[in-house]
Amino acid sequence: MRKVVIIGVGMHPFGKFLDKSLQDLSRVAIWNAIEDAGISLKDIEVAYVGNSLAGLVTGQEGVRGQVILRELGFSGIPIINVENACASGTTALRGVWLEVASGVYDMGLALGVEKLYLPNTADSIKILAADSDIRLRDLGFQFTAYYAMKIRKYMNQYGWTKEHFAKVVEKNSYNGSLNPYAQHRTPLTAEQVLSSRLVAEPFHLYMCSSIADGAAAAILCSEEKARKLTKKPLIQMAACVLRSGMFRHPSETNSPNIVSLAANDAYEQASLGPEDVDVAEVHDAMAPVELYHYEELGFCKEGEGDKMIGEGRTRITGDKPVNPSGGLAAKGHPIAATGLAQVAEIVWQLRNEAGKRQVKSPKVGLIQNSGGMVENDTAAASIVILKR
Amino acid sequence: MRKVVIIGVGMHPFGKFLDKSLQDLSRVAIWNAIEDAGISLKDIEVAYVGNSLAGLVTGQEGVRGQVILRELGFSGIPIINVENACASGTTALRGVWLEVASGVYDMGLALGVEKLYLPNTADSIKILAADSDIRLRDLGFQFTAYYAMKIRKYMNQYGWTKEHFAKVVEKNSYNGSLNPYAQHRTPLTAEQVLSSRLVAEPFHLYMCSSIADGAAAAILCSEEKARKLTKKPLIQMAACVLRSGMFRHPSETNSPNIVSLAANDAYEQASLGPEDVDVAEVHDAMAPVELYHYEELGFCKEGEGDKMIGEGRTRITGDKPVNPSGGLAAKGHPIAATGLAQVAEIVWQLRNEAGKRQVKSPKVGLIQNSGGMVENDTAAASIVILKR
Repeated sequence: MRKVVIIGVGMHPFGKFLDKSLQDLSRVAIWNAIEDAGISLKDIEVAYVGNSLAGLVTGQEGVRGQVILRELGFSGIPIINVENACASGTTALRGVWLEVASGVYDMGLALGVEKLYLPNTADSIKILAADSDIRLRDLGFQFTAYYAMKIRKYMNQYGWTKEHFAKVVEKNSYNGSLNPYAQHRTPLTAEQVLSSRLVAEPFHLYMCSSIADGAAAAILCSEEKARKLTKKPLIQMAACVLRSGMFRHPSETNSPNIVSLAANDAYEQASLGPEDVDVAEVHDAMAPVELYHYEELGFCKEGEGDKMIGEGRTRITGDKPVNPSGGLAAKGHPIAATGLAQVAEIVWQLRNEAGKRQVKSPKVGLIQNSGGMVENDTAAASIVILKR
Repeated sequence: MRKVVIIGVGMHPFGKFLDKSLQDLSRVAIWNAIEDAGISLKDIEVAYVGNSLAGLVTGQEGVRGQVILRELGFSGIPIINVENACASGTTALRGVWLEVASGVYDMGLALGVEKLYLPNTADSIKILAADSDIRLRDLGFQFTAYYAMKIRKYMNQYGWTKEHFAKVVEKNSYNGSLNPYAQHRTPLTAEQVLSSRLVAEPFHLYMCSSIADGAAAAILCSEEKARKLTKKPLIQMAACVLRSGMFRHPSETNSPNIVSLAANDAYEQASLGPEDVDVAEVHDAMAPVELYHYEELGFCKEGEGDKMIGEGRTRITGDKPVNPSGGLAAKGHPIAATGLAQVAEIVWQLRNEAGKRQVKSPKVGLIQNSGGMVENDTAAASIVILKR
């Protein structure tokens, strides 16, 4: 397998854009990535397009990528539409990585795009809860409830409290306030978080990621070709791993946890360990779950996420900065765009281009992106390790 | 890149199965493929699942593959959901091919599954026509009309007639009558075809493929591993090519034709030419379009498809048998299952396991599978070449 580098990333800001189409959002992300890479559109030989819910949101069920990309002038190249719920963005990334690593193509585009806002937001929420075969929709069961059930086990077992959770939001909302692509840019105090409306015990409103429209893109290239194209620092893809299956419940220590399994695979692929990670973006669909992701990624021992946040170690200025972008709760969570937005943030961090939210000279960055309904074994977990 | 072989294929019959779920259809196809390969489910390391319209048909929009496969006992492996309209099946195949060829995994599953029948068939047709951003749905424009417009240009330019088209159906309906997996198993005469109801000039009812429910699966393996596993003849994947973009109109001889381009790429990849192909399955969503596919695949010169069918060359007993399975018009066309059903047919043919529709000792087989709305540059074209 050849070495693959990321030579360009781009985003459309996350937020509420009722008047913008999937094409409008994608165009901005793709052109920003193309400009960042310093290439021309014609250099792109293959495209993977991640989108999860357009069939139900906009009615565009088939050939979504083709419908999006033809307007930008792509023609004749292979376009592969991929879906893996909230991990659709990194699933697209992995597809392009494999095309380039295997030598089939030299350069490819990974796009993640999602429109979630509808004139009536209740319609969007209904679609998000729509997993007909799991038959939870009719019971009103939704992701927030699932995460609430899961984290309460940690509260019971390890004594985590809402105060720990509020500290995660305090950190991430501060980071998000420095991110021009984030939907929510107001720094929140722990008190504000705890006095916001209760959504599903123990989650208060400001702990939850919001729906959003948005797009993010990355351009991947063989290292050999990239060296001839650009003088910018090359961002190596040291590992790119995807797994599906059951997450572990804290009460079931022997059942497989695909986030941990994928992380172990990725560390092995990169010949690195958790101690080498200088900055990470993790999938905090609800901000507090960041705490158990610390443990799943090997940043701390089981049940010790509360200590990491308490000691401020995961702040931008800490020794293990997590979610400098603001994470999903501050940035907003446009399903398929989220994973590639995490990738964009880590690329900017590794290039020291993250402005006010820059962590100090990182060499290795990790992305953890997950999707699907975990209790039902319908999940997908991606781990990407990038290296300057 | 490593050599990849197909070691097992399986299908669920195509037809109307209102009481069967996506899981029910998939289970049969997958277990048939597993049994055919002589492996165990646990040997499968990665799965690509092609499905086009479940979001609108069953409401299952996200993580379709996970929802389907978890019930069969798959756990922890990467599952990648792919979509490319009627080419979704071969897009899944190409994904697994790349995983194995690149050496990431040794064995993988490609599944194509589709449920199209709803209690009210008009609802299914509405969904098939649903391509919101092309905005043809509200005009009543549908695939049948598109193909009708396209083939009328051949009629004007090369003098093709409805009688030629009826001969294609005569051939394919005969082949389909020998195929236990086909939805329609009545041999039709040219007269019957021409006296059936006119759908869209020049297409009569029996020239058009019908909607169907169905599933097809293939198990791919590195050649090295396969030699240790099975004594059955190994079916080599000599080429696996996917392109998106504009098909050529006959009036625009200089515009790119992705079927031809993909075929040229595939012949080059396989170091073979059209003259080496002993048997082919082509994408006759309307039976008459088989005639211009002959030309696009290099089986005859431009505009000479009428001669090929007239001389009987593409019958099972001819020198260039095409659609021995009966093709889409006889088999039924469950979108994402179609491409892998074509693959299954060619595998059976190359192994001399096709029973009464067996062509004589073929060594090389070709699959052409296309999807999307061509006039709008939203198409996908796959070519697969298999070799005994």
